[in-house]
Amino acid sequence: MKLCMFNENRLGLIEETKVYDISPILEQLPKQTYPFPTYDLLIASLDSLKAQILKAKEDTVIYQIENINLLSPVLNPGKIIAAPVNYQAHFDEAAADEVTFPKNHVKKIQESGLFLKSTSSLIGMNKSIEIGFADRRTDHEIELVVIMGKTAKNIKAENALEYIAGYSIGLDMTIRGPEERSLRKSLDSYSVLGPYLVTADEIPNPHNLELKLYVNGELRQHANTQNLIMNIPELIEFASKFYTLYPGDLLYTGTPAGVGIIQSGDLITAQIDKLGQLKIHVK
Amino acid sequence: MKLCMFNENRLGLIEETKVYDISPILEQLPKQTYPFPTYDLLIASLDSLKAQILKAKEDTVIYQIENINLLSPVLNPGKIIAAPVNYQAHFDEAAADEVTFPKNHVKKIQESGLFLKSTSSLIGMNKSIEIGFADRRTDHEIELVVIMGKTAKNIKAENALEYIAGYSIGLDMTIRGPEERSLRKSLDSYSVLGPYLVTADEIPNPHNLELKLYVNGELRQHANTQNLIMNIPELIEFASKFYTLYPGDLLYTGTPAGVGIIQSGDLITAQIDKLGQLKIHVK
Repeated sequence: MKLCMFNENRLGLIEETKVYDISPILEQLPKQTYPFPTYDLLIASLDSLKAQILKAKEDTVIYQIENINLLSPVLNPGKIIAAPVNYQAHFDEAAADEVTFPKNHVKKIQESGLFLKSTSSLIGMNKSIEIGFADRRTDHEIELVVIMGKTAKNIKAENALEYIAGYSIGLDMTIRGPEERSLRKSLDSYSVLGPYLVTADEIPNPHNLELKLYVNGELRQHANTQNLIMNIPELIEFASKFYTLYPGDLLYTGTPAGVGIIQSGDLITAQIDKLGQLKIHVK
Repeated sequence: MKLCMFNENRLGLIEETKVYDISPILEQLPKQTYPFPTYDLLIASLDSLKAQILKAKEDTVIYQIENINLLSPVLNPGKIIAAPVNYQAHFDEAAADEVTFPKNHVKKIQESGLFLKSTSSLIGMNKSIEIGFADRRTDHEIELVVIMGKTAKNIKAENALEYIAGYSIGLDMTIRGPEERSLRKSLDSYSVLGPYLVTADEIPNPHNLELKLYVNGELRQHANTQNLIMNIPELIEFASKFYTLYPGDLLYTGTPAGVGIIQSGDLITAQIDKLGQLKIHVK
């Protein structure tokens, strides 16, 4: 299943170029008073809503995908976790350029661990990336994003795929500089997710997906998830040793080689096999 | 005003040792359907609820504070921001012990910037701190915590205090090691907040508050917020250059000297002038 959030927080089911407006499904979720859930209630409920989703599709408004505004497919993630250098070729390019990548930031993932991005930085392709500091370098980083589906603590790698709700394309936008990643990658609009969520059953093997990122039509990043240093089950095992993962938590799995500067006016196109294409402008 | 969350998500107004159950106030907040607000709706509404809070107090159940379970006074923070080394004496103790504090983690705050803690790590004093890795060192760090009250981007230091809803006592629990702070300080139960929120009008000068932390009755940390390297308005100016701050965002302002190891069975007592006393057990 391909699910999207669009226009004014509407829920859509995507089949090829058609978007079925299945927003009444959201009314199945309980209304809440303060305090609100600290995880994503829709993602937590996906499994139990499956039959209703397919039924809701039968009698509803249909849009063409090019005529809607796609929001982030996850709107209430509790946390955004991200892997630092997690492709060998990106490790090598970073190690070779000490001016852009301070030495203490270029370490093996087992040593630097995972970092957090602010949930306030999250946007969908309906918005633009807004460059935060005119005098500092902002880079594009395409990443396969795992969307957690179940509460998970101390998960073993061999069972980890069962905890995944789906996948999406992420941009882990970054300003370069001396500060820790959790600051430099948390500016407003610096976490992009889209175009939609593809449920895990459609991607039995997430380790053979080609990633491509273009800036103004020019290919900048091109890799395959088979080259991840720490693969997805290993990332989930590692993360869940430190903290509980909740439905809707996002795990950005790291970017391959080819990161580079973006500028106002650029158009970024990111695509990953089976996950569609994310297009976003830079302001 | 001193406000707390207690027992099963009840809202309390504290006067000396009395807690007035003013939970009907929460019903003034709109019920919501998915997606839920990504900031703290109660904190955002505090100003407009003030008169009703005082009225709600007049005819309600009253508890003694020692008979209730105090939760974190903020239950839906969008992000938890924290300052690294922000007292000179702590900088000096960290710089002198390279085994415990890797060199690349001991830098001026202007260089290392701020970091994030996961919101899933947040607990109140009704819970216990659970040590995450038996084979690694977990340290206590007492900190003054600023609770943001208004949406803020690119705030100047001279206006920054106007954006604060209140203050509370925080423990920024930490495992030592090579990973970035946003991982090592985000374990479940590693962010403590309490015992309650004191509104900003009761603390016109947050830069002259004494902090004390005891472990099993022994004084371990003792400092005054007048010794902050980057003071609160400067921290807000710095943070809001990078990202938008939202009502309920927590800003842990950094810990003074005296950090040290805790062990299962310990009782931590943290107190800050005007903010009460936070007591929590370690498991």
